[in-house]
Amino acid sequence: MADSDISMLMADMTARARAAATRLAAMTSDQKSGALIAAADAIRAASDTIIAANALDMEAGAASGLSGAMLDRLRLDAGRVAAMAAGVEAVARLDDPVGDTISRSERANGLVLARVRVPIGVIGIIYESRPNVTADAGALCAMAGNAAILRGGSEAIRSNRAIHAALAAGLEAGGMPADAVQLVPVTDRAAVGAMLTAEGAIDMVVPRGGKGLVARVQAEARVPVLAHLDGLCHTYIDRAADPEMARALAVNAKMRRTGICGSTETLLIDRGFADPAPVLAALADAGCELRGDADVQAIEPRALPAADADWDTEYLDAILSVKLVDGVDVAMAHIARHGSHHTDAIITDDADTAERFLNGVDSAIVMWNASTQFADGGEFGLGAEIGISTGRLHARGPVALEGLTTYKWVVRGTGQARP
Amino acid sequence: MADSDISMLMADMTARARAAATRLAAMTSDQKSGALIAAADAIRAASDTIIAANALDMEAGAASGLSGAMLDRLRLDAGRVAAMAAGVEAVARLDDPVGDTISRSERANGLVLARVRVPIGVIGIIYESRPNVTADAGALCAMAGNAAILRGGSEAIRSNRAIHAALAAGLEAGGMPADAVQLVPVTDRAAVGAMLTAEGAIDMVVPRGGKGLVARVQAEARVPVLAHLDGLCHTYIDRAADPEMARALAVNAKMRRTGICGSTETLLIDRGFADPAPVLAALADAGCELRGDADVQAIEPRALPAADADWDTEYLDAILSVKLVDGVDVAMAHIARHGSHHTDAIITDDADTAERFLNGVDSAIVMWNASTQFADGGEFGLGAEIGISTGRLHARGPVALEGLTTYKWVVRGTGQARP
Repeated sequence: MADSDISMLMADMTARARAAATRLAAMTSDQKSGALIAAADAIRAASDTIIAANALDMEAGAASGLSGAMLDRLRLDAGRVAAMAAGVEAVARLDDPVGDTISRSERANGLVLARVRVPIGVIGIIYESRPNVTADAGALCAMAGNAAILRGGSEAIRSNRAIHAALAAGLEAGGMPADAVQLVPVTDRAAVGAMLTAEGAIDMVVPRGGKGLVARVQAEARVPVLAHLDGLCHTYIDRAADPEMARALAVNAKMRRTGICGSTETLLIDRGFADPAPVLAALADAGCELRGDADVQAIEPRALPAADADWDTEYLDAILSVKLVDGVDVAMAHIARHGSHHTDAIITDDADTAERFLNGVDSAIVMWNASTQFADGGEFGLGAEIGISTGRLHARGPVALEGLTTYKWVVRGTGQARP
Repeated sequence: MADSDISMLMADMTARARAAATRLAAMTSDQKSGALIAAADAIRAASDTIIAANALDMEAGAASGLSGAMLDRLRLDAGRVAAMAAGVEAVARLDDPVGDTISRSERANGLVLARVRVPIGVIGIIYESRPNVTADAGALCAMAGNAAILRGGSEAIRSNRAIHAALAAGLEAGGMPADAVQLVPVTDRAAVGAMLTAEGAIDMVVPRGGKGLVARVQAEARVPVLAHLDGLCHTYIDRAADPEMARALAVNAKMRRTGICGSTETLLIDRGFADPAPVLAALADAGCELRGDADVQAIEPRALPAADADWDTEYLDAILSVKLVDGVDVAMAHIARHGSHHTDAIITDDADTAERFLNGVDSAIVMWNASTQFADGGEFGLGAEIGISTGRLHARGPVALEGLTTYKWVVRGTGQARP
């Protein structure tokens, strides 16, 4: 498509999104829930159509040489479609933050001020391979009263179209504007650029994908971005850690699932901790490649030497860099230098040391005696998440409905003029 | 200064700011307050030095042809320096949001989650002529536990240096890091560019100045911006408005001070409102130039014809565009099309119509039976403001200490591994 046509397409989509957002902002929680439940039903009813469309994507993906991992992320079957519909229903059951009063005050002159939660407006979601994001992200945006413009990966375009058709038809049947959730119907890369520069027309962009996508969004965006950068998470085992807890949490934090952003990538062990050997042995026994210096290799002979780059590497794999440090302050300094402000944990039975770490580590999530793998909106009780923000403004850590809202100041007077 | 020297200067300043921010984040509210009070004392003690430095700026400004209004904004005298010191003390008395628990929950697995307010980190302030911003903004950032990098206008550089020297010495004497508030010591425009692109080194930039500055910041910034765009505020007089209240509020909303962002720029009057003539006459009598169509001119003969551009113009002057509209929905549509999402008010005795307006108008501040001139952090009980945000994310409307903080998730466990 010519760039001028892309511009016209996006201008039309954003105008329709704004109109839909105005209507969505006036819907009650029950109305929004009802529409989402209708959408879940519609996705279930369209299961065969969605799976057939997905089969074409899988065929094209295999022909174009997508990796096995990518094909697995792309693949839909009856179970995955049912899970997608159930996910939309779960969003419909979440507490709607819109209309909540954040704060309220009365001034001496009688003015009554309230800060009230309202939707953000129009949200753009740019994502890759997993087609379930079409339903998940669309449902989350709509439940918070926002219009969504979805732009999925070209490899999933047929699946996304089929899911979106069902979702949008269901939402409309359930009483939402048809344009509440729109899908960019073309795969041109210029459409991403148009979204990223739609200042005033798109209020926030959420990238969901790998580093290449996030880097492009960060570099090109003129609209605000809720970005998830690296998850270079640390677990620090303090001298006062319970040895058995340290062993269990280190293994879980790294090995439960190595490909998620909350997976620990670097293990810091206090030189004062008495039992490092069983921890490292358990990791190696679990199939984890360890990388450390001579001290670490002396403790666990299967450990390989670490290079400087290891301390800055998000492996997303069964690899762990390990460093011995002289106490919590050195651990915190290492995290400040090498971490990504995502999730970092301390294992200790010393409450003072724990508080020192929790206060001093500047990350979206800090944990005491828990596995970094808990860094997840579902585990945090948010029901779902649009992403995990590693930025500092607006929303931090797992972002769900509340992070998809903003507020307005509502001032009620009785004729007050300002002196 | 060569661009490479500017880069080195900014790299050094941001590194020192980050180190200071780490220390500031660990300070108690009392410690921060105490340092600010010491800084206020230091500003008072340096009053003569500050006024002498300001005299040199005034001289240079007059020689370079600054307007009378700009020279007035630049000018400091003993009263203004005393007010500046009092402003710093007022910030020291504000409730410190750092450490507040925003939400808390316990999961079924026993994990206890809390969202706790923390400072943002390093904040850049880019401002023009008024040298008091050096003290105001520096104090607000520091009270919220942030390190500030201030970049004032070249016309005020001597004043800013003198104020900053006193402020920083006072803060340090009061126990804060010397680098808690830094002033960019050079006037090169490249320093602004370096701040705007300091991704990861500066966490937020706040521009405080005219449209030229804000436009440059919006265009160039790669770091998040808390921006204040236009204040194209509306007052809508509904058919159910009390005539006397309508007259009084219209005059106050426009004429109390015409140069502030909360000043009403467009008056919308319901055709069903019985008494428009006294409202318009009172405005004209107060010296306001009215601009409207033939209907408006028929009501108030002193009104001039309005051009299309009038509906999109922030006059910041004793000029008001006036339009007759058919009811609240048409008024809201006009505001949606022409407003700047800053502050908009309805005058009515009909509570249902008021709620329709308060819910339906998508602005940072919506008001019922009050003057738009109340759009101000002090009037909102925030004590002070770093600015009024017209963006939708992070903070909206008047922004004070809370808007200069973010949060982290603190997770406390007893050894939980994720299943």
